[in-house]
Amino acid sequence: MFFHVKELQYTAKPSKPDPVYAKKLQEVLGGQYGEISVMMQYLFQGWNCRGEKKYRDMLLDIGTEEIAHVEMLATMIAQLLDKAPVEEQEDAAKDPIIASVMGGMNPQHAIVNGLGASPNDSVGFPWTARYTIASGNLLADFRANLNAESQGRLQVVRLYEMTDDPGVRDMLSFLIARDSYHQNQWAAAIAELEEKEGIVVPSTFNREYEKSDVAYTFMNCSEGTESQQGRWASGPSMDGLGQFTYEAKPVGTGQAPELSPAPGYIHGTPTTKKQ
Amino acid sequence: MFFHVKELQYTAKPSKPDPVYAKKLQEVLGGQYGEISVMMQYLFQGWNCRGEKKYRDMLLDIGTEEIAHVEMLATMIAQLLDKAPVEEQEDAAKDPIIASVMGGMNPQHAIVNGLGASPNDSVGFPWTARYTIASGNLLADFRANLNAESQGRLQVVRLYEMTDDPGVRDMLSFLIARDSYHQNQWAAAIAELEEKEGIVVPSTFNREYEKSDVAYTFMNCSEGTESQQGRWASGPSMDGLGQFTYEAKPVGTGQAPELSPAPGYIHGTPTTKKQ
Amino acid sequence: MFFHVKELQYTAKPSKPDPVYAKKLQEVLGGQYGEISVMMQYLFQGWNCRGEKKYRDMLLDIGTEEIAHVEMLATMIAQLLDKAPVEEQEDAAKDPIIASVMGGMNPQHAIVNGLGASPNDSVGFPWTARYTIASGNLLADFRANLNAESQGRLQVVRLYEMTDDPGVRDMLSFLIARDSYHQNQWAAAIAELEEKEGIVVPSTFNREYEKSDVAYTFMNCSEGTESQQGRWASGPSMDGLGQFTYEAKPVGTGQAPELSPAPGYIHGTPTTKKQ
Amino acid sequence: MFFHVKELQYTAKPSKPDPVYAKKLQEVLGGQYGEISVMMQYLFQGWNCRGEKKYRDMLLDIGTEEIAHVEMLATMIAQLLDKAPVEEQEDAAKDPIIASVMGGMNPQHAIVNGLGASPNDSVGFPWTARYTIASGNLLADFRANLNAESQGRLQVVRLYEMTDDPGVRDMLSFLIARDSYHQNQWAAAIAELEEKEGIVVPSTFNREYEKSDVAYTFMNCSEGTESQQGRWASGPSMDGLGQFTYEAKPVGTGQAPELSPAPGYIHGTPTTKKQ
Amino acid sequence: MFFHVKELQYTAKPSKPDPVYAKKLQEVLGGQYGEISVMMQYLFQGWNCRGEKKYRDMLLDIGTEEIAHVEMLATMIAQLLDKAPVEEQEDAAKDPIIASVMGGMNPQHAIVNGLGASPNDSVGFPWTARYTIASGNLLADFRANLNAESQGRLQVVRLYEMTDDPGVRDMLSFLIARDSYHQNQWAAAIAELEEKEGIVVPSTFNREYEKSDVAYTFMNCSEGTESQQGRWASGPSMDGLGQFTYEAKPVGTGQAPELSPAPGYIHGTPTTKKQ
Amino acid sequence: MFFHVKELQYTAKPSKPDPVYAKKLQEVLGGQYGEISVMMQYLFQGWNCRGEKKYRDMLLDIGTEEIAHVEMLATMIAQLLDKAPVEEQEDAAKDPIIASVMGGMNPQHAIVNGLGASPNDSVGFPWTARYTIASGNLLADFRANLNAESQGRLQVVRLYEMTDDPGVRDMLSFLIARDSYHQNQWAAAIAELEEKEGIVVPSTFNREYEKSDVAYTFMNCSEGTESQQGRWASGPSMDGLGQFTYEAKPVGTGQAPELSPAPGYIHGTPTTKKQ
Repeated sequence: MFFHVKELQYTAKPSKPDPVYAKKLQEVLGGQYGEISVMMQYLFQGWNCRGEKKYRDMLLDIGTEEIAHVEMLATMIAQLLDKAPVEEQEDAAKDPIIASVMGGMNPQHAIVNGLGASPNDSVGFPWTARYTIASGNLLADFRANLNAESQGRLQVVRLYEMTDDPGVRDMLSFLIARDSYHQNQWAAAIAELEEKEGIVVPSTFNREYEKSDVAYTFMNCSEGTESQQGRWASGPSMDGLGQFTYEAKPVGTGQAPELSPAPGYIHGTPTTKKQ
Repeated sequence: MFFHVKELQYTAKPSKPDPVYAKKLQEVLGGQYGEISVMMQYLFQGWNCRGEKKYRDMLLDIGTEEIAHVEMLATMIAQLLDKAPVEEQEDAAKDPIIASVMGGMNPQHAIVNGLGASPNDSVGFPWTARYTIASGNLLADFRANLNAESQGRLQVVRLYEMTDDPGVRDMLSFLIARDSYHQNQWAAAIAELEEKEGIVVPSTFNREYEKSDVAYTFMNCSEGTESQQGRWASGPSMDGLGQFTYEAKPVGTGQAPELSPAPGYIHGTPTTKKQ
Repeated sequence: MFFHVKELQYTAKPSKPDPVYAKKLQEVLGGQYGEISVMMQYLFQGWNCRGEKKYRDMLLDIGTEEIAHVEMLATMIAQLLDKAPVEEQEDAAKDPIIASVMGGMNPQHAIVNGLGASPNDSVGFPWTARYTIASGNLLADFRANLNAESQGRLQVVRLYEMTDDPGVRDMLSFLIARDSYHQNQWAAAIAELEEKEGIVVPSTFNREYEKSDVAYTFMNCSEGTESQQGRWASGPSMDGLGQFTYEAKPVGTGQAPELSPAPGYIHGTPTTKKQ
Repeated sequence: MFFHVKELQYTAKPSKPDPVYAKKLQEVLGGQYGEISVMMQYLFQGWNCRGEKKYRDMLLDIGTEEIAHVEMLATMIAQLLDKAPVEEQEDAAKDPIIASVMGGMNPQHAIVNGLGASPNDSVGFPWTARYTIASGNLLADFRANLNAESQGRLQVVRLYEMTDDPGVRDMLSFLIARDSYHQNQWAAAIAELEEKEGIVVPSTFNREYEKSDVAYTFMNCSEGTESQQGRWASGPSMDGLGQFTYEAKPVGTGQAPELSPAPGYIHGTPTTKKQ
Repeated sequence: MFFHVKELQYTAKPSKPDPVYAKKLQEVLGGQYGEISVMMQYLFQGWNCRGEKKYRDMLLDIGTEEIAHVEMLATMIAQLLDKAPVEEQEDAAKDPIIASVMGGMNPQHAIVNGLGASPNDSVGFPWTARYTIASGNLLADFRANLNAESQGRLQVVRLYEMTDDPGVRDMLSFLIARDSYHQNQWAAAIAELEEKEGIVVPSTFNREYEKSDVAYTFMNCSEGTESQQGRWASGPSMDGLGQFTYEAKPVGTGQAPELSPAPGYIHGTPTTKKQ
Repeated sequence: MFFHVKELQYTAKPSKPDPVYAKKLQEVLGGQYGEISVMMQYLFQGWNCRGEKKYRDMLLDIGTEEIAHVEMLATMIAQLLDKAPVEEQEDAAKDPIIASVMGGMNPQHAIVNGLGASPNDSVGFPWTARYTIASGNLLADFRANLNAESQGRLQVVRLYEMTDDPGVRDMLSFLIARDSYHQNQWAAAIAELEEKEGIVVPSTFNREYEKSDVAYTFMNCSEGTESQQGRWASGPSMDGLGQFTYEAKPVGTGQAPELSPAPGYIHGTPTTKKQ
């Protein structure tokens, strides 16, 4: 069960309205790597957690913190939209700066949301649950989480550079720091699990059942061999179980496929003798 | 530019048709972590790559390999659908096993695709480009890639357990091995980049601009302190720049938000004196 | 800011696993009128609220309660999936009941979610933010909320009839009661606002600017006049400002449209003299 | 069956082209609460109607009228796009006003639709059938309809304020009046049904099966008790069957969930002794 | 403006309920090539039509007919769902045939739609406006229409084979005949336009501006030259303006791309000397 | 299996950056009729092909070529985004031209993609697999392909007119020529198949089972008879098997539908005696 307190986790006050920036800031609220994504991802990972209790508790802690981040961003966006100039006014239309603001806004902020935040990204695409993963395998999922915090911090940093409003920057500097911690956090949790399970997810599949001869080979499917220069092309593999090799000219070993004709009731292209 | 050869990268021949399994196998073709996702993700990361040439080349190598995986899965699914019993037949309807097969199929495999594979997942949801990321920051993106290969291998392993068709298992054992390699590959590439840039993405943001006092703190936003037992709650941080701390009772330090009334032309709820 | 306690708002324990029912129950978790929808809708209405404080507080109260409902349903679904028979087993395949369960499950529950709940509906379609509304006009939004609780209770009641598991029914009887209250709640809030503002939303638009001659008229655009028998076709209007009338044979009063040819750079169909 | 007449239901002629406004007007054509939504919703409710004939007839009347509204908006948008300056021209690019128009347009209006309307909203998101509901319960659905007409009129009113084109405003004043009537209409139909069935939908579920002790209680899940001031927190309930009460400090009465480990073939996180 | 008459365009009465078939039939109602798609496509092409009046009139004729097809299918589906066994009943659960029906249904038909049709396809994916096109170029669009009627008739024919219900087959035989006509219709309209404009759309682009040396060449981008056997590989081109040629070994003539480093504020991967 | 060479199929170098145009160009990369659509459509048609080998080979040839077109467009877009002015700068904000560029960009190009291309269209909507078709009937699918190349060339031509950058126009003139060829190619392949199978798809359905009396009739469902002037309204039908006729006043011959009440467990609207 959940409870709400009135205070935001951190201050969210812009120095002045900026409806064009409000549109951009939606990305880290309702985008692929926005706060709604991590909120939902961590909560579902926690609720579905069949592993040690400390993981469930930790996932629900951070999932609950992310609801507070969604709240801060929604509050910030609503204030950035204060007094947005959407009304038709003879004078406004003549002022190129106001006209530019009117043109650069997300029209739904005015028409649909009445100057409020919405659970969409910076191009107005709605948040979708296909952004999240809760697989039941914590090592896999913590890698998803580390990625989400990496992409998320990158996006917030870019948004930080796109404004010079001190109030907005103050709030973003808080979110950036939390993303720094959360990258550290997932890196720590991954290290803990990799120590037990090794690098390859899932660790419980009997590796005798995989084609071991292609399990450590880089396949150079394009011209040029610059790709041979990386750590992935030679030396011991990261899981310590093999040696990286580089296949410069991979060859297809499978069949050249030929499919049977479809049964008549499918009404595919009629077969002819030439085939 | 790209070229095609007729041979599949590896054999893709089921021992017998199984249209119900064909529906399930769609997950790793057109699902969130299916082969289309990694194909598109690696190709776009490669095409957009502004970093060292070896990364661009490597990304296009693996992206090109993934097209071959899509091809193998599509070919396998088409054969699993061979002679699927979709036609109305008095006799078939009375056989519970055939009836069960007819009910368990994806109806679109017959109606829309004429017994062919489609770029959808196992519940028929179409592949969407929002599954992919190419951020311009390779360390962030390689983490996305490591996650994708982890989730992907996990799903293929589960599908391996759901069939005992030797032909299908043979092909899956190839894909599982490639996913093992690709997890090793991204782990190697990440290690290479982390050595240069450190743990926290992006490495180029001046960390003086973030709220350093919350950059190493776990916030216990839920009851109970099981979450204190993890590596993330104490000891040196993974980036080597701080000490993890555990805040058992975090407090909101922001304002209790109060928004200004909307301008009249927004026609929000009329304000009254009681407010 | 938000906090979590470990206890669910109400008990969520099925008497036995039932993966086919788990698929159906997803509808009221991640469907159009599921708990995620009301959770997000109430929270965003609360965060964006520019009206009286009691409304903001009330919206955040109920939005926070709905997170707990999401939690209960996710927990229930994970347990309904316990030990789901997805593994290939010679014997299982021969038992028609087990085969039927394997066929009736959502394949993603096993392949993607590892026997956990997901933020999708009963056909696997992902939750999308386009299910929600926060318009800035509370009377409009409370009508959306009353509808959501009506559709939601209807769906939960139908799901109640589809199982006879006492544990599941116990939890649903709690959710049904909360939906009863919430319908009452929104009806009460609507009554309060309609008393101040009248029936027609938004109340602040100057009604002189609308075509008053069609503001109280039912237009019979289909054959037959059964539609004349309703309360909407005669008597005083609900807003007390007009008399309902019934136009038995409405006529188009607008132009028969003729569009100008497109400019050449659009490369539309070339115009010819016959036009 | 349906028939078309050439005249629009009401005049749809802008005084001058305005491609930037055309983009915004798309919201009430193809958006969540646009005319396509109500057209489809009323038609499907009518076609699926298993209740009294007057409801089926009425739903098909209004559904058919809404097709005419879609037609008027499409016609208006096509004319607003007349002669839109999308062609590359040295001179145009230098004129900031023309440049601003070119930048503020929806690019698909030119590239995809050749200066025609499209079934999308104001940010270009396509209309989706998930916007509609036809539940088989008319009281539930009429509440959906009242909400749709409330949100719809609110959006049209906002769009009215965003233009001073007399032709556009004339057409919008017609649509606003029809939305006024339709709000009255649904309010009347709801009153008629509530008189028979009461407030709580569905009325036919045996209320002994719900947890009656939580059916009239507001739960204060957030700090502060401003929410106690509303009509929903005390006094007789709207359905006349109970008394509203206010639970200031609700407590979770359910279990603290613990899930069983997943079976081996799921390859979840391996369990360890610490759990 | 539009009007409705009570009679369906053609009889839509199943001989008996069949909820599993109802799920499948949704494909041609709300699928990619279902009746909603052609209804919306023809209406928007008509409303946006800037060409000769006969085209606008014809498009609105057929668009209006398609609304009647949507109506017939919705009516049929609702009747196929009559008395669907969704209620929990001890006895039913034991009967494998009833169990199979319960498992094979679309769960939303019961939970969401109360045994009514919905604007979704056979896997429950909602109809989306991205299925339609109205480009402003009639020759292009009539080709889209010919394709839609071809795919549509193919799907209806497949559905015809999947049932032996005489009532359903009767209605489908009507739809199949209309699709036959509509294929003929679009073929006729295309022939008319191609006679004026030629094969290549759009006809108004100055062909001197295209790279004429690759305008008639088949490029053999895959191994093997079976593709040389087709009409497209030799002989006069279909537009009568060139000769088809076959390039057996095409070569990339463009640059090997190298992108500039991103500016610092993008925080891409830091450049190093090795590049 | 596939291989990549470093050289693009044709040069893709803009003369100067233009981030606003980059946003528009996304339409033909990731839009409904963009290069990703044809790439996926041709590859899946090829992989699923159960017809003559020359068709499979040809489909994989052209599908493989389209990957190269995706590559060229992605490369072009990345370069158009070079040095895009997204950073906050006091001076830039004052320059209306720079401000206009900043406002006209797709914000995700900077925030999400770090100045790279993305698999989305010109309004940021993600590419979806529902854009494609592979039906198993080649004549149907080749019509889809001819339409795709027609819409595609139309869109590229419009984009050609929207820029005067010689580098961009050079690349587009290549793509336009390939689209010219591909229209010729599909027209040739269609002619080949129509010669064998006739006009109506699928050719294998026994035409005695369709309602032949409506198989050659135009139904004038709207007022006015301009639609009688077309080739589709009189003369021999295109399939040579009938005569076109024109039904000036079509009449519904089906029933006026009446649905049975829903069973009690559906909780639809309660029936009353008035019905």
